[in-house]
Amino acid sequence: MNPIRIPVVEKVLSANDSVAAETRARLDAQGIFSLNLMASPGAGKTSLVERTARALKDSLPVGMVNGDTSEAAFDAERSQRAGALSVHINTGGKCHLEAAMVRDALKLLPLEQIRLLIIENVGNLVCPSAWQLGAHRSVLIASIPEGDDKPYKYPKMYSGVDVLIINKIDLLPYVDFRMDYFRRGVETLNPGLITFPVSCRTGEGLDAWLDWLRSRAA
Amino acid sequence: MNPIRIPVVEKVLSANDSVAAETRARLDAQGIFSLNLMASPGAGKTSLVERTARALKDSLPVGMVNGDTSEAAFDAERSQRAGALSVHINTGGKCHLEAAMVRDALKLLPLEQIRLLIIENVGNLVCPSAWQLGAHRSVLIASIPEGDDKPYKYPKMYSGVDVLIINKIDLLPYVDFRMDYFRRGVETLNPGLITFPVSCRTGEGLDAWLDWLRSRAA
Repeated sequence: MNPIRIPVVEKVLSANDSVAAETRARLDAQGIFSLNLMASPGAGKTSLVERTARALKDSLPVGMVNGDTSEAAFDAERSQRAGALSVHINTGGKCHLEAAMVRDALKLLPLEQIRLLIIENVGNLVCPSAWQLGAHRSVLIASIPEGDDKPYKYPKMYSGVDVLIINKIDLLPYVDFRMDYFRRGVETLNPGLITFPVSCRTGEGLDAWLDWLRSRAA
Repeated sequence: MNPIRIPVVEKVLSANDSVAAETRARLDAQGIFSLNLMASPGAGKTSLVERTARALKDSLPVGMVNGDTSEAAFDAERSQRAGALSVHINTGGKCHLEAAMVRDALKLLPLEQIRLLIIENVGNLVCPSAWQLGAHRSVLIASIPEGDDKPYKYPKMYSGVDVLIINKIDLLPYVDFRMDYFRRGVETLNPGLITFPVSCRTGEGLDAWLDWLRSRAA
């Protein structure tokens, strides 16, 4: 339908990956472990950053780069209050973060004070999966009220991530969510995926996530 | 950063709008009222189509075109079982429907048997807002567990729609959602927006939505 678009996007993605590789090298040199955190809008990305920063800030200082499609910097402000050094990126309507946005944002963070960097992507289950940012691990948050069919409907996102957090498990009694069906879909796409069922609201399950982070970033 | 992208995308959008205008003319000629239904993943798009088709199928036969990023045609199958003549579009990973996809899908529907057409877009609060499809009204579903900050964070989507459905109000007792704050954000972006608070799970609030549809499609 639009034959001109494909080569242009491919060129852009290849340029993006070069910038992502530079970012990775920079983070490695600083001894910073980094996450690309992706999810639907409202799945709990910022709540997870808050919980993580509060728990780890003394032992593993957290930096946060947050992408949103608008000027509203609520997420960066929430993370900052929780103890994470935070930078807000306005993507200007773009549906995902790109490596150059993250590179530029990192210039504003005192990297020598950070041990764990969380890059909170734009709320979107489709586009962010195509863009490398330079992070060490990609983390997807699924949310119970989104429904149990999401792995089947967003296979590219589910198959490309390193860690899955299943958030809002406190809502399981109030919605129709077949955990077996959900997990079967995940397992088919991404066998052996590291998974943490949690509630960022009640705190349930977060210890295992924090232990995993400590073991990776140590 | 990527200066070549903007003109290309503009050309594509303009071509898209021409196809959308053709679709609109075709629907008008058939006397079909049509909706472009947008929301985050899991906000309840298909549940709303099911409820709507079940309630209206005898008086206002429903057709449904569903865009998903994969081959999984669950949503089209659910809608078909609820009485809507349904077509599934695999966008091949694309994050939104485009007018040409809808035009081609409509060739597969017996339009003379349909009075109400619901186009269920890809679950995404960013990209679909930029692509006209030819529908008469754009409808956004917000979902209570997504949180009350979404209008502030996805202003382009909230400001561009004609109707807002606030779904999963049955979950209000179990989450932190300030309805006043949410509605203030909506009102600033889109004053006087027609709004229906509903629960597709319990059926609460759906009568007002169905009445509105009957009045528009009559």
